[in-house]
Amino acid sequence: MLWGGRFAGLLDPAAHALNRSLPFDRRLWAEDVAGSRAWAHALARAGVLTGDEAAALDAGLQAVADEFRCGAFAFAEADEDIHSAVERRLGELAGPVAGKLHTGRSRNDQVATDLRLWVMTACDRLVDATGQLASALVEAATPHGATLMPGFTHLQPAQPITWAHWLLAHVWPLARDRDRLNQVRASAAVLPLGAAALAGTAFGIDRAALAADLGFRAVTPNSLDAVADRDFAAEFLFAAALTGIHLSRLAEPLILFATPAFGFIALDDRFSTGSSLMPQKKNPDPLELARGKAGRLIGHVTALLATLKGLPSAYDKDLQEDKEPVFDAFDTLDALLPVLAGLVATLRVDPARMAAQLDPAMLATDLADHLVRRGIPFRRAHALAGRAVRLAEDRGVALTALPAADLVALDAAFEPDDIAALDWSAALDARSAEGGTAPAAVARQLAVARAVVAAWGDKDGGASIGRR
Amino acid sequence: MLWGGRFAGLLDPAAHALNRSLPFDRRLWAEDVAGSRAWAHALARAGVLTGDEAAALDAGLQAVADEFRCGAFAFAEADEDIHSAVERRLGELAGPVAGKLHTGRSRNDQVATDLRLWVMTACDRLVDATGQLASALVEAATPHGATLMPGFTHLQPAQPITWAHWLLAHVWPLARDRDRLNQVRASAAVLPLGAAALAGTAFGIDRAALAADLGFRAVTPNSLDAVADRDFAAEFLFAAALTGIHLSRLAEPLILFATPAFGFIALDDRFSTGSSLMPQKKNPDPLELARGKAGRLIGHVTALLATLKGLPSAYDKDLQEDKEPVFDAFDTLDALLPVLAGLVATLRVDPARMAAQLDPAMLATDLADHLVRRGIPFRRAHALAGRAVRLAEDRGVALTALPAADLVALDAAFEPDDIAALDWSAALDARSAEGGTAPAAVARQLAVARAVVAAWGDKDGGASIGRR
Amino acid sequence: MLWGGRFAGLLDPAAHALNRSLPFDRRLWAEDVAGSRAWAHALARAGVLTGDEAAALDAGLQAVADEFRCGAFAFAEADEDIHSAVERRLGELAGPVAGKLHTGRSRNDQVATDLRLWVMTACDRLVDATGQLASALVEAATPHGATLMPGFTHLQPAQPITWAHWLLAHVWPLARDRDRLNQVRASAAVLPLGAAALAGTAFGIDRAALAADLGFRAVTPNSLDAVADRDFAAEFLFAAALTGIHLSRLAEPLILFATPAFGFIALDDRFSTGSSLMPQKKNPDPLELARGKAGRLIGHVTALLATLKGLPSAYDKDLQEDKEPVFDAFDTLDALLPVLAGLVATLRVDPARMAAQLDPAMLATDLADHLVRRGIPFRRAHALAGRAVRLAEDRGVALTALPAADLVALDAAFEPDDIAALDWSAALDARSAEGGTAPAAVARQLAVARAVVAAWGDKDGGASIGRR
Amino acid sequence: MLWGGRFAGLLDPAAHALNRSLPFDRRLWAEDVAGSRAWAHALARAGVLTGDEAAALDAGLQAVADEFRCGAFAFAEADEDIHSAVERRLGELAGPVAGKLHTGRSRNDQVATDLRLWVMTACDRLVDATGQLASALVEAATPHGATLMPGFTHLQPAQPITWAHWLLAHVWPLARDRDRLNQVRASAAVLPLGAAALAGTAFGIDRAALAADLGFRAVTPNSLDAVADRDFAAEFLFAAALTGIHLSRLAEPLILFATPAFGFIALDDRFSTGSSLMPQKKNPDPLELARGKAGRLIGHVTALLATLKGLPSAYDKDLQEDKEPVFDAFDTLDALLPVLAGLVATLRVDPARMAAQLDPAMLATDLADHLVRRGIPFRRAHALAGRAVRLAEDRGVALTALPAADLVALDAAFEPDDIAALDWSAALDARSAEGGTAPAAVARQLAVARAVVAAWGDKDGGASIGRR
Repeated sequence: MLWGGRFAGLLDPAAHALNRSLPFDRRLWAEDVAGSRAWAHALARAGVLTGDEAAALDAGLQAVADEFRCGAFAFAEADEDIHSAVERRLGELAGPVAGKLHTGRSRNDQVATDLRLWVMTACDRLVDATGQLASALVEAATPHGATLMPGFTHLQPAQPITWAHWLLAHVWPLARDRDRLNQVRASAAVLPLGAAALAGTAFGIDRAALAADLGFRAVTPNSLDAVADRDFAAEFLFAAALTGIHLSRLAEPLILFATPAFGFIALDDRFSTGSSLMPQKKNPDPLELARGKAGRLIGHVTALLATLKGLPSAYDKDLQEDKEPVFDAFDTLDALLPVLAGLVATLRVDPARMAAQLDPAMLATDLADHLVRRGIPFRRAHALAGRAVRLAEDRGVALTALPAADLVALDAAFEPDDIAALDWSAALDARSAEGGTAPAAVARQLAVARAVVAAWGDKDGGASIGRR
Repeated sequence: MLWGGRFAGLLDPAAHALNRSLPFDRRLWAEDVAGSRAWAHALARAGVLTGDEAAALDAGLQAVADEFRCGAFAFAEADEDIHSAVERRLGELAGPVAGKLHTGRSRNDQVATDLRLWVMTACDRLVDATGQLASALVEAATPHGATLMPGFTHLQPAQPITWAHWLLAHVWPLARDRDRLNQVRASAAVLPLGAAALAGTAFGIDRAALAADLGFRAVTPNSLDAVADRDFAAEFLFAAALTGIHLSRLAEPLILFATPAFGFIALDDRFSTGSSLMPQKKNPDPLELARGKAGRLIGHVTALLATLKGLPSAYDKDLQEDKEPVFDAFDTLDALLPVLAGLVATLRVDPARMAAQLDPAMLATDLADHLVRRGIPFRRAHALAGRAVRLAEDRGVALTALPAADLVALDAAFEPDDIAALDWSAALDARSAEGGTAPAAVARQLAVARAVVAAWGDKDGGASIGRR
Repeated sequence: MLWGGRFAGLLDPAAHALNRSLPFDRRLWAEDVAGSRAWAHALARAGVLTGDEAAALDAGLQAVADEFRCGAFAFAEADEDIHSAVERRLGELAGPVAGKLHTGRSRNDQVATDLRLWVMTACDRLVDATGQLASALVEAATPHGATLMPGFTHLQPAQPITWAHWLLAHVWPLARDRDRLNQVRASAAVLPLGAAALAGTAFGIDRAALAADLGFRAVTPNSLDAVADRDFAAEFLFAAALTGIHLSRLAEPLILFATPAFGFIALDDRFSTGSSLMPQKKNPDPLELARGKAGRLIGHVTALLATLKGLPSAYDKDLQEDKEPVFDAFDTLDALLPVLAGLVATLRVDPARMAAQLDPAMLATDLADHLVRRGIPFRRAHALAGRAVRLAEDRGVALTALPAADLVALDAAFEPDDIAALDWSAALDARSAEGGTAPAAVARQLAVARAVVAAWGDKDGGASIGRR
Repeated sequence: MLWGGRFAGLLDPAAHALNRSLPFDRRLWAEDVAGSRAWAHALARAGVLTGDEAAALDAGLQAVADEFRCGAFAFAEADEDIHSAVERRLGELAGPVAGKLHTGRSRNDQVATDLRLWVMTACDRLVDATGQLASALVEAATPHGATLMPGFTHLQPAQPITWAHWLLAHVWPLARDRDRLNQVRASAAVLPLGAAALAGTAFGIDRAALAADLGFRAVTPNSLDAVADRDFAAEFLFAAALTGIHLSRLAEPLILFATPAFGFIALDDRFSTGSSLMPQKKNPDPLELARGKAGRLIGHVTALLATLKGLPSAYDKDLQEDKEPVFDAFDTLDALLPVLAGLVATLRVDPARMAAQLDPAMLATDLADHLVRRGIPFRRAHALAGRAVRLAEDRGVALTALPAADLVALDAAFEPDDIAALDWSAALDARSAEGGTAPAAVARQLAVARAVVAAWGDKDGGASIGRR
């Protein structure tokens, strides 16, 4: 135990079990070793350790890391957390010099450093994974720049759009997710090490050099805040929750489109499951899990915010609750994103079913727009088109099948060929402003999306972090 | 796999990993076996199985349970969930008859049954554990029925109370928690088995007899609702969150009272921890975890509610997200409650420090009440007492040290011996209405609390459930 | 101001605005007056007031209530909350005797009493409103006990059910909501009045009589807990959130069923809205709001739980945050439930569209069950039926159109007339266990539901409470 | 009504009330008018309107704005939302040309534009208000760069720090809040107008020019995403919640420090309140509200995330739920921040009480560090210092009063003057690394903080937005 000197007795076993963070913080082993190696180096730079001592610590820490890497590290029951486990093993491997490693630091700044490092890598990894899904959407969109489908608002048919436009609508939320993850990474990349327990280290550490060694962009400006601050963790959980919500908003309509009633798409068998009772079932489980797990991610950000609220001291033990939601949020997205990328890459589209559900009444806005171009104020044009829709409905015919005579009889503002002007392609083509569903606009959008997505994979996000 | 017949290919490995609930639902093995044994019995009762077949299944299921119990059960990579693992192993042990077990049921009603059984036991277990903490509070209160301490509102000294009264204030929230847990248990104890996938079983199962076999109090009245309903899980998470909040509201003032500034209590070393940097530290970690983990519990109820929102079908895969928060909420309280009971049972009280912080200004209400008894309307008496407090503060003397002459000079309504009437014991004794802090009232309250707490341990809550 | 005596200066205007609860707690006027009338009576019973004083207070309070009732009550800028507003006005109407009303109580027990009374009435009101919706569902189900429709799991067609069965599936969650609301009412109906600020009243109040006067079922057993406890408010918010989730789970499939792709139902124009741009649109706004507002209700319970966490004293000002979520949760359901009742009562069903979407593959379970009845173990029967489904799919024919020869050729276990045994009515009728979709079982369920719903309107929940 | 043409009947009155967003979205009047003026201009630029028509619309919209500004605008019962109210009134003031304004846009892109504009201003306003509080903290810190106080971890005395260091620890979280608010502003400043209902406008609008007119930095790249995206609102709520949590973490220790037990600070009467029952009370209500309202803010971000989860279409009515939490989150911080700035600016510090609570055991880390400088490995030095603390505790003397002989007798590693080396000033001075509590480091930190805070007030955030 790292703190026994002052205590008469042992911790109650149940209290020890409650207190012990090792079952989950063991995932931080790589970050803990990296932080300790840099700290040994900084102590040497400050003249607190000799070069030999620092080298011995460094070699010992590398040996510890090797044990973790190959699965040979053995935890002891008395190991309270990853920090004490690493230091204990270091002592076994490197001898008494290990007792010099903790000079001038505290677990308070140590754990904050470890978690920040982990979150930095986690952000890189999720940027990569969102990129894969975005890329799958872009590829899936490419052949469908003119594939007509009904567009919905309120889940009711609204206006014709293209399948490429629909798919690309789910790329941009991922682009925002990536931006947020990069912002979280920058928030995390501020070094708390050197804050010690709360008041700052009493040894002449060059914190800027230490930050540079560990890949942080700055050092924390106040030691109390350094050990208290978990904004970066809350930001990570929020970014993860919003990413999860975007996945749920992709999943939900795909679930609908895969029903026989819509029939727009079919999932590949590799991404569908069956039923233990009903032999004919083919269920979109991965999509349902994407939808459901957004709830879990919302719970995590809520949990940490509630835990942080009202904490009084620089470091309170409550902060130990920061890690599990962070780990689980990462694991959740790390599991979901590749599966969704695979699902999107393999789904089959049925343009005929899409076309079959294009109700001519969806051209009512184009009818109104047509009247507007003839000089009728939009508000009146909208009402006229509405009356035409209702007339067609009353007659039981499609809007485009309304006889010209009936239309003109409905209101003198109509002209005989107003209906004939309605056309699916024209409806698409008219929406050519930036971001619109016109094939030309979609082609431009697709090119931009492709370039954007390609760019975000450039950064090397392949670093490995402690996995579940 | 339980559902392969219709499928051409295998599930994508990443999708299989995402889909697989075995890593967490293995905790349901005992409930799954119990449910299956009862189901085999019900199939026999309905004439679907012969007595020999049912007996073979029962023996096989008991053998499976034995393997779990002694840790010998080996999961296979293809086991998708606990249900398929149990059925697979049953087949290995009991032969082809195992293929008859799933007749007329579905995993949809099976998993709901399993989780309800688990929650029923979890409620019993938490009722027990809250009882232990309540009992520790009652015992701790017993010798302190007249131990004076400052009572606080807004964390400012308000009126004198007793330490027993303070401790008992934390028993009643636990009593409400127990009531809620029992209500949750009753909510859970409605049997969904027999609902099959969604439409009801097609075999003549006597669901009432099945419910009786498994300890349920009723059967679900609608098969669609039976497989969709997770109210009992949400209720469990809410009850757990509120229990956690009560623990946090016990922990927070104990953390304060254990500071040197207050010094009302000292934690035993068995329930305190030290610092890796500061040798003198003695930290109330278990109390801080009790406070912090309330955030986690709030997160869990939020997560499940968000997941349930808007689910469209009888059973959607999103419901798989119900188990992890339920398990973790139980584990959290199951770990916290005994530690807090131990901590309360061993904490040392310092009545002298409590007494030293009784500021005579806390008797201002008694001064006002005294004036009221002399016929002065309370609103005016309150203002008069307030002016006396301010006068004493301006003079830098205690309220009870204010010279009679000064008091009378302040306002003609005062009489010379108004101050002399102020007395700590009298202040306590006056509050003798039910629930008040008068020693006599506290003694009555203590007796009731002791009886109430004793009663709730009577139920046998010792059943074991799948642990972390 | 009720507490000026001790203070030198005035509150900062911005702090006064922040502190002031009158903008929302004015809704408690009726409860505040009722509580004060009962308190005056209790003071008289205890000999603290004369009969004449109590009568004067009672008359004055009734006059205050009359002003509220007819909209004539004028708030003053200095009124901090509803309690001070009522007491100020009472003083203006009844003279100096008003200064005696606050004897022996505090705003801490007063506000808890007021809010509990409000919640008790709110529960009654919501029980009524859920009853209206349940009743609309029962009525809508009545003619459709044999109207076939596809039942879904994972939103994929699963087995045939009836429209009545589907509607009734949404009655039972409301029945659970009603039970929860009644439990909340019972939680709220414990009287805190007499706890005073925190230590108990110093006047000989008969709290049991007071409780009886105000319709509470018990008195709080500990004065500290009495002013600290907001469990009843959290329970109310949880019950409201779960009710909201049930409404969202009713709304979501109705939104789907109202799309042209499904076309199972059509909403009446009275419960649909149009578009400012697209003349043909008919949007299910009330259903979307029912779905969306579940998020708001989840937010409210989360908010109060987070606020309650870690509160240290008997009464902390943070508790002022209890009222707005409670009021808004009530308003939300009070607005939603009648609209949904109206929407359900007026929606049109299209049994032909439902029937048209019955895919014979949904009878695969019945094929398996048929094989089981011939003695084939279910697990093998399931696989056989799955292969038959796949064969039919490969051939591009309906399962029921699969030639007997092909079936027998597929596996020797099949017999020529296995397919002919499949039939929609038979599939329904087989599911006749309690809660199943067989018309006979649904008829029994409908009778029970009708009786249950009828019973819960019996209680007079018509009391009015302060509205938005 | 804007969409009547197609409908036979009127909306049910209760459904109309449910549907109507005017009671809250009326706050968007200024943004709605600004957006419409820019749109009229864009239509003219596209040749859809003549210059005269655009001028007439512009004049009419200015007249509408004038009515709002002076409180003369009269809402009609049929006004469904702020958009229809503005357009209705425009028609009354400007005549038939008003019917041309809605050409080529939809309320879907209009409302998203309005809310984004509102959030942009709200961010500016909160940046300002956080700046005021940060500035008050900096000013309060300035004279206290060497004022000693106990620093706490786990709320237990840990090491000596300075009051300036403590105050500055609460500046940096606000600096992060400001960065986040600026990021939210950037997220919001992407223009959706031109997306129309979902598919893009059918008129040749120059969206980039429109964005420039309205102060947006870019245009949305996909019309479906444009009307569906509420990331900026969720980000705003998250930033507000985290700001609220920072306020709660400032408030909580100030509440503690203001108790007589600590006595470190006293609140000015202008920021304290009294009790209706206890004349002596002086309560820190604004701090308690700051703590409590963090719960409300957590609830808001949870609510919107839950509402957004799983939304299927480009625009669903559920999105109407975005505004109320955004408005309330702004109002909450807008009310809290100035009050806290005033409270901080006026609180009185008691350095003597702070000094009196400096327990020499807080120098134990310095004793260990001293041993380290003598060459003893830290881990052993920590244990030695721990034993010295325990010895002093057992003897009942201060650590610094431990006789040298006893110390040396405890362990041979001690030297006689180890204790004499302990000194409060030395302990401070040793922590001189960046961010440490040494007066010199704090002076540097203060200078940086002052410069940072000064800079962030430079932007003109004074724009007014619709208030509560």
